[in-house]
Amino acid sequence: VTETPTRAAARGSDYPGISDPRTRLINAAIDSFAAKGFHGATTRDIAAAAGMSPAALYVHHKSKEELLYLISRIGHEVALSLLHDSIASSTDPAVQLVAATHAFTSWHANDHTRAHIVNHELSALSAEHLAEIVALRRAIERAMREVVEAGVDQGLFVTSNSHMTALALLSLGVDVARWYREDGAWSPEEVAGYYGELALRIVGAK
Amino acid sequence: VTETPTRAAARGSDYPGISDPRTRLINAAIDSFAAKGFHGATTRDIAAAAGMSPAALYVHHKSKEELLYLISRIGHEVALSLLHDSIASSTDPAVQLVAATHAFTSWHANDHTRAHIVNHELSALSAEHLAEIVALRRAIERAMREVVEAGVDQGLFVTSNSHMTALALLSLGVDVARWYREDGAWSPEEVAGYYGELALRIVGAK
Repeated sequence: VTETPTRAAARGSDYPGISDPRTRLINAAIDSFAAKGFHGATTRDIAAAAGMSPAALYVHHKSKEELLYLISRIGHEVALSLLHDSIASSTDPAVQLVAATHAFTSWHANDHTRAHIVNHELSALSAEHLAEIVALRRAIERAMREVVEAGVDQGLFVTSNSHMTALALLSLGVDVARWYREDGAWSPEEVAGYYGELALRIVGAK
Repeated sequence: VTETPTRAAARGSDYPGISDPRTRLINAAIDSFAAKGFHGATTRDIAAAAGMSPAALYVHHKSKEELLYLISRIGHEVALSLLHDSIASSTDPAVQLVAATHAFTSWHANDHTRAHIVNHELSALSAEHLAEIVALRRAIERAMREVVEAGVDQGLFVTSNSHMTALALLSLGVDVARWYREDGAWSPEEVAGYYGELALRIVGAK
């Protein structure tokens, strides 16, 4: 299992096609939304956190909602590609499940400030943007469900409800972004490793 | 296992010592914080949702922060007493675990709008109020951990990390408040029942 990059590294590398001032504004928006929520953070707050004038923000981003949409879309795309890469790493559903849970959990611990916004500020998105994010969420749920179902089909896992089981597996990772603290008892690796074991239990792996 | 009251009933009955206009303002604050976040919702929004003037709000509550504190404190107290009642219902850790998971999950599904605020708006609390809420959260974690440890001590459960296992069990319930929708595939009872089964798996019940 590959280590998920640290928050700082992930922030730098997640936006390869996006110019530096735009990236600075996205990171400033993450910090501002974390401090005051989407509705409470003003474009003035975000511009100041990026060391820019409020007018400069609008050169790079149409609106505060567009910033939230970019944060949310990129965050969901990162989570989805972590799952896809984990699943592609093996043909054994048990190995896939552990790798997927590890990568998903590790990302939510390492990048908990961003991940919390990605998962909890959807109601502020425009209808069109929300539909795009919901499609990504469905793809994330489908990826996890297919691992569970493959394990059940091959007689490796036992579960009466693959759909709810997949949601529960994802919930474990998502909620890490709420409670994880850098000064807490465990590293992201330790949480991710333990949650891989819990995932095997949850699916009734033999 | 007793059914958790519905959201409307829980809202009415959770504030027995609090006068009707205060309760109306608390419920209006829950809806306003859900719509716009704590920082985005103004006291004017909250008063309007309660059918009162902004000045009337201050007759009943010192500040917007005090409203958030009351919502958060009462919510955590309800969750804690659900756990304590579930644990008191039996001396068998497996029965206690299923009852506690059921009650905790059911509350987060039935009352998901309130529960989401209770769990995700802590950063807006004053330092003094936050300390009180953190103490309640520790009591909630301790209650769940003691059930896990009792099961391990009696040779009924197998887990190498009771602390992280208890956090994971609580995460499952907490995250239901994020994804649960009344028009979704499952009733709160169905989710709570299934999560009771998952809890037994998570602790390695024999």
